Amino acid sequence: MARKDKPRRARAETPKGFRDYFGAEVVERKAMLDAIAEIYHRYGFDALESSAVETVEALGKFLPDVDRPNEGVFAWQEDADWLALRYDLTAPLARVYAQHRNELPTPYRRYAMGPVWRNEKPGPGRFRQFYQCDADTVGTASVAADAEICAMLCDTLKKVGINPGDYVVRVNNRKVLNGVLEAIGLEDEAHRAAVLRTIDKFDKVGETGVRELLGEGRKDQSGAFIDGVGLANDQIESVIVFLGARAKAAARVARGEHTQGAGIRLEARTSSAASERWRSDDERFLKMASDDPERLLNFETLNELRGLVGRSEVGLQGIDELEEMADLLDLQGYGPDRIVIDPSVVRGLGYYTGPVFEAELTFEIADEKGRPQRFGSVAGGGRYDDLVTRFTGQAVPATGVSIGVDRLLAALHAKGRTGGAAAGPVIVTVMDRDRMAEYQSICAMLRGAGIRAEVYFGNPKNFGNQLKYADRRGSPAAIIQGSDEAARDVVQVKDLVLGAKLSQDATVEEWKENPSQTEVPVGDLVTHLQRLLK
Amino acid sequence: MARKDKPRRARAETPKGFRDYFGAEVVERKAMLDAIAEIYHRYGFDALESSAVETVEALGKFLPDVDRPNEGVFAWQEDADWLALRYDLTAPLARVYAQHRNELPTPYRRYAMGPVWRNEKPGPGRFRQFYQCDADTVGTASVAADAEICAMLCDTLKKVGINPGDYVVRVNNRKVLNGVLEAIGLEDEAHRAAVLRTIDKFDKVGETGVRELLGEGRKDQSGAFIDGVGLANDQIESVIVFLGARAKAAARVARGEHTQGAGIRLEARTSSAASERWRSDDERFLKMASDDPERLLNFETLNELRGLVGRSEVGLQGIDELEEMADLLDLQGYGPDRIVIDPSVVRGLGYYTGPVFEAELTFEIADEKGRPQRFGSVAGGGRYDDLVTRFTGQAVPATGVSIGVDRLLAALHAKGRTGGAAAGPVIVTVMDRDRMAEYQSICAMLRGAGIRAEVYFGNPKNFGNQLKYADRRGSPAAIIQGSDEAARDVVQVKDLVLGAKLSQDATVEEWKENPSQTEVPVGDLVTHLQRLLK
Repeated sequence: MARKDKPRRARAETPKGFRDYFGAEVVERKAMLDAIAEIYHRYGFDALESSAVETVEALGKFLPDVDRPNEGVFAWQEDADWLALRYDLTAPLARVYAQHRNELPTPYRRYAMGPVWRNEKPGPGRFRQFYQCDADTVGTASVAADAEICAMLCDTLKKVGINPGDYVVRVNNRKVLNGVLEAIGLEDEAHRAAVLRTIDKFDKVGETGVRELLGEGRKDQSGAFIDGVGLANDQIESVIVFLGARAKAAARVARGEHTQGAGIRLEARTSSAASERWRSDDERFLKMASDDPERLLNFETLNELRGLVGRSEVGLQGIDELEEMADLLDLQGYGPDRIVIDPSVVRGLGYYTGPVFEAELTFEIADEKGRPQRFGSVAGGGRYDDLVTRFTGQAVPATGVSIGVDRLLAALHAKGRTGGAAAGPVIVTVMDRDRMAEYQSICAMLRGAGIRAEVYFGNPKNFGNQLKYADRRGSPAAIIQGSDEAARDVVQVKDLVLGAKLSQDATVEEWKENPSQTEVPVGDLVTHLQRLLK
Repeated sequence: MARKDKPRRARAETPKGFRDYFGAEVVERKAMLDAIAEIYHRYGFDALESSAVETVEALGKFLPDVDRPNEGVFAWQEDADWLALRYDLTAPLARVYAQHRNELPTPYRRYAMGPVWRNEKPGPGRFRQFYQCDADTVGTASVAADAEICAMLCDTLKKVGINPGDYVVRVNNRKVLNGVLEAIGLEDEAHRAAVLRTIDKFDKVGETGVRELLGEGRKDQSGAFIDGVGLANDQIESVIVFLGARAKAAARVARGEHTQGAGIRLEARTSSAASERWRSDDERFLKMASDDPERLLNFETLNELRGLVGRSEVGLQGIDELEEMADLLDLQGYGPDRIVIDPSVVRGLGYYTGPVFEAELTFEIADEKGRPQRFGSVAGGGRYDDLVTRFTGQAVPATGVSIGVDRLLAALHAKGRTGGAAAGPVIVTVMDRDRMAEYQSICAMLRGAGIRAEVYFGNPKNFGNQLKYADRRGSPAAIIQGSDEAARDVVQVKDLVLGAKLSQDATVEEWKENPSQTEVPVGDLVTHLQRLLK
């Protein structure tokens, strides 16, 4: 029992859902952020760092699955305002652009990176603070801007070690879904938002779950009843068919039942004036007009969608945009092997208005039970033409991408593609506490030559502890200088990498020779270590 | 008047005391953080990134001027806990070390960088989110660790462009103040903390203000009466004399009234066994024993302090530590010209227990009214031996430094020592909307060669707007390809730097020749631009 007169100790715990990152984890993430920023910068995007804290009013309520005020964000009251931690980097960009638009170029290409916070229920591998690395173009409605963002995403994935073949970018367009909803007579905004949120749960609850949630509702695992959106059966059917449009097209193509003359129509579509030059001098054009099965599948998926949106103008516009985007990317070498038209991608965030997309890693990794699983989405984005309008009242179209850096790092780890941990420092051991200044001067000499080095600061009495510490730090070498060595102006250099190797498999003779320890004049120490560190 | 049926527009504003950072501001800060991290890493410090959110319990209440619960921090309630944004990187380190101490090496040298948040009244140039860049050594009580931190701070300042002569590191020790308070019979913790907070206001209220606040209290500018600590007059006098110890020593040295035989005593002090080697082979020893006025001033300041702490054991220990720290640094070449013993440095944070120090830039810059002013403190730190103990109950000594990166950047700006803004991208202009894919391919070619490039995404109809945009982006060149150029597989390259120069001072003849625009075959574009960008 705790005694009353003893103050309770503070608990040394991160809040639930938060964690710390150590050494190599930090360095690897920084290297990835630097690599991504390099590509973004080369594409002409400028850096922006907005504050982590925003007014709740500026952030708006666009998180999926959020109904109560301030749910999903960390928020607190200050005078009349509610302040909150940003939940992404897009909502703050809209605020920044509206606030500073007179000083910013139009269009404004910007990149941003940093932590974002979500007040969600934490789970294994799910944290409430995580990194995003975004690039957005504000002030242009051109589909070319959406295509550019996707191309840049592909280049960025390559830069960090994810090659073509290891991922697809699934592309959809919110206008197509709106067209489908219009075609089935669902005009109400709140209903549409509810449909969107429901579709976004497809991965969790499957087709049956989505059917139930679009209709009367369903019991969840805990037995609680979740109210449904209340659509009629034929309406539900249309939404389900929409989600499965690519799968249906794939089945048709597999059966050879693709649109009659699809090859010819593909050729007709791409032989516009805009493609004249490509047709004449670029073999990609010829490849494009052929009946490449992946290209055909994108094409047939669009045809499926045409059947679903009926005469809805917005729906047809969405399909045209999808087609234009895929064409532009195709012409630049980002073909249908990785740019995939897929209506099942809807993106949970409420602010998207046009093209939406997700980069999904296609390789399999073992899950916690050793079963192979697809790694899934590591980046996503889309067009959000109304987000700045919230502030200005004027139309300011915008589009962008967000890379989930922590998930991407986890993927590279799973593939064994991250660099090794950073090397530990050379340890200058302490034989004589009174000569601390001299040990520090040896370190200073090494650091001056670019060698990472430190003096041992633990209790020096037990020399074994000093070597254990060096081992724990992953040190390549330890320096020893007792009074005898100091008098002769030399040091002993212990090669800890060789030492570790010898301790595993050396013979008695090799041990006696002890080639892992060498006496070196102080004046030669830098050269000696530089050789050893190679 | 706002119409009732029109929803109010969201305000595009950062919360009070927060701001956004654009382009070069972000890039320059990143370059500085990278430079600092390089030095920290070379000294053997490992990276750590803890979460921005902590429990209020873990953070503790160590901010100066904070009396009410959660004052000074941004905090909110979650279930039974209060969570808050970290106000520095030291309190989180103590929590991390306590939580993970079994997996961490001892001593644990770590560096960390990132934003911290303070819920203070914002003012001009004072923001509620700012960057810190810290290095700390946890798990050793050795003064050598404090000295190492100061040496590293000096190396770091040099690395970012602040040279010796442009700064001093003022060093003090909390134990000396505690010794003075013990000598005047002030044992009560709460009283001591109040004295500390009062001293920390010296810069704001001056000596008279501090006298009043240590005594009965004083009226502030608004006329409100601030209660004092309630010390007696002779107690107040001792504290004031303590704060002025260096100034008093300086006056004595200037009058030639320094301690009789100070030169000899200095020699005696440094001729210990530890310095034998230095004495015999290092000229720094001889310099140290001489009566160098700056070295003498540090020595005399220590003597003043000896008179003030009386027989207080903790006070004498503090003075010995100050002396040892200055000696160690001196022996490593960080002499009394920049390592200055100064009792007026107390540091506001409540958790320090031993050495404290501040790096102060000594050059003058003009303030907002054009008056020359010292730039002041850009970094500070000290020893905090009880901060981990709060969690573990075991003694875990620790020491560290925090660099105020934003202030340091401001100082370099004021001195005109920051690098120029990053170069803008090459702009590929749009002459024909239908050839977007080809313009993108030109960009891709440039980017592949490492050249920053982008297609113009604004409305292309007014070509002047495209060039204005390029100007606003600081572009070095614009690429133009109409149908005529496309047919001949060439582009026009506009050298915008040369163009700007010509538009200022070209003759009519020079204008006619228009040397700023060149026709280049597409195949030679990369080489041409690489030459131009040099």
